[in-house]
Amino acid sequence: MINYAPARPGTKYSDIDTPALIIDLDAFEANLQRMAAFVADYDIRLRAHSKTHKSPLIASKQMDLGAVGICCQKVSEAEIMVEGGVDNVLVSNEVVGRQKLERLAALAHHANIAVCADHQSNVKALGQAAAKFGVRLTVLVEIDVGANRCGTEPREEALALAKLIASDPALKFGGLQAYHGSAQHIRDPEERRQVSENAIKLTRETVELLDRNGLTCDIIGGGGTGSFEIETTSGLYNELQAGSYIFLDADYAKNLAAPSSIFNEFAHALFVYATVMSRPVDDRAVVDAGLKALSVDSGLPTVHQKPGVHYVSASDEHGVLDADSGHKLPAYEEKLLLIPGHCDPTVNMHDWYVCVRGLHTDGAHVEALWPVAARGALL
Amino acid sequence: MINYAPARPGTKYSDIDTPALIIDLDAFEANLQRMAAFVADYDIRLRAHSKTHKSPLIASKQMDLGAVGICCQKVSEAEIMVEGGVDNVLVSNEVVGRQKLERLAALAHHANIAVCADHQSNVKALGQAAAKFGVRLTVLVEIDVGANRCGTEPREEALALAKLIASDPALKFGGLQAYHGSAQHIRDPEERRQVSENAIKLTRETVELLDRNGLTCDIIGGGGTGSFEIETTSGLYNELQAGSYIFLDADYAKNLAAPSSIFNEFAHALFVYATVMSRPVDDRAVVDAGLKALSVDSGLPTVHQKPGVHYVSASDEHGVLDADSGHKLPAYEEKLLLIPGHCDPTVNMHDWYVCVRGLHTDGAHVEALWPVAARGALL
Repeated sequence: MINYAPARPGTKYSDIDTPALIIDLDAFEANLQRMAAFVADYDIRLRAHSKTHKSPLIASKQMDLGAVGICCQKVSEAEIMVEGGVDNVLVSNEVVGRQKLERLAALAHHANIAVCADHQSNVKALGQAAAKFGVRLTVLVEIDVGANRCGTEPREEALALAKLIASDPALKFGGLQAYHGSAQHIRDPEERRQVSENAIKLTRETVELLDRNGLTCDIIGGGGTGSFEIETTSGLYNELQAGSYIFLDADYAKNLAAPSSIFNEFAHALFVYATVMSRPVDDRAVVDAGLKALSVDSGLPTVHQKPGVHYVSASDEHGVLDADSGHKLPAYEEKLLLIPGHCDPTVNMHDWYVCVRGLHTDGAHVEALWPVAARGALL
Repeated sequence: MINYAPARPGTKYSDIDTPALIIDLDAFEANLQRMAAFVADYDIRLRAHSKTHKSPLIASKQMDLGAVGICCQKVSEAEIMVEGGVDNVLVSNEVVGRQKLERLAALAHHANIAVCADHQSNVKALGQAAAKFGVRLTVLVEIDVGANRCGTEPREEALALAKLIASDPALKFGGLQAYHGSAQHIRDPEERRQVSENAIKLTRETVELLDRNGLTCDIIGGGGTGSFEIETTSGLYNELQAGSYIFLDADYAKNLAAPSSIFNEFAHALFVYATVMSRPVDDRAVVDAGLKALSVDSGLPTVHQKPGVHYVSASDEHGVLDADSGHKLPAYEEKLLLIPGHCDPTVNMHDWYVCVRGLHTDGAHVEALWPVAARGALL
């Protein structure tokens, strides 16, 4: 079931019930616009990743600002995006199993759908599902550019798979999925650049091999929030797949960037609002947001604009705060903003975005509630 | 929104779509019955913790087997439990803020509701909400028995709070909440016993002090899946609050127990069913269950009945499997069962329990789908 919302439009910021997933609309809109302006300056398209936000409404805002479409990771996410009006979706992931393949093929009657493959039998199954549903599915070959997760080996193996796709009348070869997930989180900008440059080199060699075999890549996609400037200036990639730039989580905030990088211009726009619900002793405060309100896979949340105050342990429904000497812990019943360690799985725990206008002003109030429409869309 | 279910009643086990949250009904029912039989042998009541399962249906099964009621952590969970027919609920946590307090008081018109407090101003606010809604709320004093989270200091501080509760005509002093969360996960049984015995000692001193002041504890509650045998034989506690015993996660499976302990009789009953969706190289398999299907806060999941095969890294939608030398990784499209590291926050990611009968037999099939009714109930 969908749960009670912690506020309604017009609610004063201080009256929002907690824990609540907050969007700072001013920071969020600035992040959207900054990326749109960057992309407009280069010969590259933005295909923003919706696994971050799981909201067709946010996807539409990205497309209104010029994004060519969106990425999803799951067929069920794609369904919800299409239902919400998004007409151009790349499932930037492999889809396995008859049920999901048939749902994907059926969806291609209603929107421009592409998907990735890294296995010959998957290509055959994609072709069968597309033929059964009377659609032509666009299929990209995912190559492993160093992340050691999914994806065929670059070059020859990718070529063999691309040929197989191109030979199936129900499929259209769409290009390469060449995303390096773990590179996004390398802290040192020079090391991040080196790893990304190596991914670009492998991708370039594969594109050139495909070209020599008459296979054109309409999409050469990759690049996340940590590396998109590198893919952009490669002269090779034509689509960026960044997602987290809209929110900027505590993990990404640990990335270092060159002074000229626009990465420095993104600001935290996603928070979990929490209340100090217990203040049993002077040196401990306990907030009402724990493991069911915040994902800790990439580290504990940080406390926004409370220097010296730290979220030091999480249990199911509680978070314990500690303060450095000389710093005061928040008072009993005080509310504060936590910056999630990892935005994507945190968003996936909540039913509602509580969208606040003028967050750091006296007039801070809830401007809108947006459902996290694809929350829990796992299939 | 609530998502597509990965199966329907009657679906063959092998046809369940993935990722899916699976209950092995045979193991689950044996766990329920084993705990019920244990409790029946002692002069103690079971108030099972519903934060584990978030299902009024499972709560009702626990009460059918003798549990006196359930615990919740959140008012919104309590609402969903009462709506689902549960008539005796302890919110084993502090409830802070006018909106939640009023919802809690309103709920006391429809069920037997108790709540915890550890702060004087919270007791006053509870009294005001109860008076406003014309109910008498039962309030327990939570004491910190060593977990260093919420709770007043034992003895004098607890007495002062109990007196304050007893002096409010809209409140009834209900006893002590004396749960030691972190003790549950101490691996060594002797060390776990020592920490639990210390919690019992603090609780006993507080109960005796309250007694001398004419304050009787109807409930002396605590004891989780790791320690409940110790509280039971204390002769002091009268309510157990174990939750995870119904499912037994990978973290609890790391606890060591004395050979005579019934802890050894609980079996894993909760799994995430996953499919190998990528098999790019010989020594790597990738499954379709990552951070949005499994909580990794207490460690990565383990792979059920696949000795030598390990889940070694999780990203949003993927898990990477590795095999020890001499062991084979599962094949492309093979489905397998993962035992979550931590059951409570894992359950909270899913909309549906897919309940399988005869899991390890040829006739394995889906007997029922149960909604995770209080999933995301954060307020």
